[in-house]
Amino acid sequence: MEPIQGNAIIGQSGGPTAVINQSLVGVVEAARASGVIGKLFGARHGVRGILGEDFVDLFAEPAEVLEEVAQTPSSALGSVRKKPTRDECLAMFEVLKRRDIRYFFYVGGNDSAETTHIVHQVAVESGYPLSCWHVPKTVDNDLRVTDHCPGYGSAARFVASAFMGDNLDNRSLPGIKVNVVMGRHAGFLTAASALGRRYPDDGPHLVYLPERPLTRDQFVSDVAEVYRRLGRCVVAVSEGIVDAASPGHLTFTEVIAQGSDLDRDTHGNVQLSGSGALGDWLMSLLKQSLGGSIRVRADTFGYLQRSFPGVVSPTDAIEARMCGRKAVEFALSHGGDGSVAMIRASGPGYAIDYQPTALANVAKETRGMPDAFIAPEGNHVTQAFIDYAMPLVGPLPPYGRLRGML
Amino acid sequence: MEPIQGNAIIGQSGGPTAVINQSLVGVVEAARASGVIGKLFGARHGVRGILGEDFVDLFAEPAEVLEEVAQTPSSALGSVRKKPTRDECLAMFEVLKRRDIRYFFYVGGNDSAETTHIVHQVAVESGYPLSCWHVPKTVDNDLRVTDHCPGYGSAARFVASAFMGDNLDNRSLPGIKVNVVMGRHAGFLTAASALGRRYPDDGPHLVYLPERPLTRDQFVSDVAEVYRRLGRCVVAVSEGIVDAASPGHLTFTEVIAQGSDLDRDTHGNVQLSGSGALGDWLMSLLKQSLGGSIRVRADTFGYLQRSFPGVVSPTDAIEARMCGRKAVEFALSHGGDGSVAMIRASGPGYAIDYQPTALANVAKETRGMPDAFIAPEGNHVTQAFIDYAMPLVGPLPPYGRLRGML
Repeated sequence: MEPIQGNAIIGQSGGPTAVINQSLVGVVEAARASGVIGKLFGARHGVRGILGEDFVDLFAEPAEVLEEVAQTPSSALGSVRKKPTRDECLAMFEVLKRRDIRYFFYVGGNDSAETTHIVHQVAVESGYPLSCWHVPKTVDNDLRVTDHCPGYGSAARFVASAFMGDNLDNRSLPGIKVNVVMGRHAGFLTAASALGRRYPDDGPHLVYLPERPLTRDQFVSDVAEVYRRLGRCVVAVSEGIVDAASPGHLTFTEVIAQGSDLDRDTHGNVQLSGSGALGDWLMSLLKQSLGGSIRVRADTFGYLQRSFPGVVSPTDAIEARMCGRKAVEFALSHGGDGSVAMIRASGPGYAIDYQPTALANVAKETRGMPDAFIAPEGNHVTQAFIDYAMPLVGPLPPYGRLRGML
Repeated sequence: MEPIQGNAIIGQSGGPTAVINQSLVGVVEAARASGVIGKLFGARHGVRGILGEDFVDLFAEPAEVLEEVAQTPSSALGSVRKKPTRDECLAMFEVLKRRDIRYFFYVGGNDSAETTHIVHQVAVESGYPLSCWHVPKTVDNDLRVTDHCPGYGSAARFVASAFMGDNLDNRSLPGIKVNVVMGRHAGFLTAASALGRRYPDDGPHLVYLPERPLTRDQFVSDVAEVYRRLGRCVVAVSEGIVDAASPGHLTFTEVIAQGSDLDRDTHGNVQLSGSGALGDWLMSLLKQSLGGSIRVRADTFGYLQRSFPGVVSPTDAIEARMCGRKAVEFALSHGGDGSVAMIRASGPGYAIDYQPTALANVAKETRGMPDAFIAPEGNHVTQAFIDYAMPLVGPLPPYGRLRGML
């Protein structure tokens, strides 16, 4: 198929990551090199920028600026959380037609894949030829088809490093420490807490994931058992952990939020990040259950984990760039719509093949941690998870113990 | 003065830092090279390890282990928060005599300097010749005499990086963001939030320090003004900020804690870190004052900022090592007791001279931010602070904007 000559547009959507601009710059590079795409417009704040014709001329950006932007965390074009209606799509096409835009690229997670899918469907129905490609990104690592998602490796590196440091902090001044990690439905980021463990008594000693509903009693008795054995306990808790005792399996945050002023989004989801509510509630639960003399602390990692400059997985940075380039390549060779999936080669080494996949496979629905990655007791990860995740985060910082302190 | 032949002991005390083991290893290196110190014992968990004769033979540690430990955050020997009584000092001397220990090194902040001072005073009174030297460390940067404290540069680097990323996050998905930073009495670490700003509209837009008592109304009106002007606002708040309207100028956390189950330490200080209470309270205050439609979030950096592996200032690492070496040098050349102070050379370049100082100058009392580092409005830092702190944190990670997004 001969690619259609025309212009292109790109937007970034959803929560930022440390490498989302690598994908942006990958699209710019491949579009510029294509000889087919005449102009590449950057839409400020995603579909909102298209509706408002709020554009940046990306081919006008100097190479050294693009390289610096690629290394800068968080969406350089600004982001948005918005699902366009049919009428909004039609309004966008008016703008796109006027500028002869034939290619639409959208960097984001499952909601952004859905937006890409909607835009393409309305384009087909209304007879406007527009190739629509989604570039995956999410720190949650919860997209289907792809082995993993750009953005996850760097966020996982932050979480693994944070737990390495916090485990050492807890070892020097013992007590119980609860750390709350991002991830509403999928436990991948919380599971990364275990990647920096080197000695058998290293924390996190317990890892709670949204995939395994939990009772308060089980939580308290797990922590008490570790504390009795080691005199200390570091716990990783996903912000999305589910109260097994609640009707309809609400998250603990939903249970706590009843009667509080935590925000809800337009889908009715309660605000999980940007509040210490869950961590503080778990701290109080442990203090009340285990007695006041034990030192209990809770930290909530919050937004730091998704766009921390300088804590970037080299593999993640390279792959995010490649996903941007591949989206352009697939748009030119396949047309239509789709997303980029990373398929891991089987065998001992780590290698990735980039393949196109249908948007219906990626949009809306997400995936959680597979059972093989979760310990049978439901309170830790398995070696299979460690083997899966280690190549994604890269070598972790040095960590040694004195021989006399082993 | 001819140095006394004998053995030595070292302990680590108080909250850990990213470079506290550089100081430990500096002491080991200098003690080994001295030809005067026959054995160096590491006390597990500070003075508690001396009382319990719980020791590590540090000269038996291989050089490659020591180098790896030097790069590992948090006290490798374990830490403690304990001021020894006179009787406990006498009990310690029994242990020290038996092992012919004539040198006592203690790595820590102002409380640890006080412990070092107490140990030396009781040693003098009881006629036990013991040279006692304090090695400075604290992320709070609140010791007197010294230009700055080992541990601060790395923690400041974490805070500066975190705000760089969070400012970019907030720019891509605008709203109001409050971040709570460590520092009970001194604002140095909170002030470091401003070090990564590059463009005039970069956050933090407001910086609140314990040195400047604040009313709720002033806080809300400051934030509202920035939000009205920029459509977003990133706020740095010290955990120790003081409520100007409270009787006796309590911290906001003290005010909130009345009736909560936050811990108090043996000095009656309420627990500040390891809880999201202050951040969540400020978030609620802003939501209630500014109306529910504005996106407001709060994160509390917690323990991450003091021992995050991989986020280390190279200058801080080198200086922490040097402070350990210098403590040994001063103990051998001066005897008695003292602490190591870093004196900054005047002039345009950055250079440090290491000098001995009396423990009475360092123990107990701390120092806050000088007035010259705080903006007249009391809600930001000055260029003088930036000039002071930048050499301590080292070059920050890359950060660029698209030309079309300036």
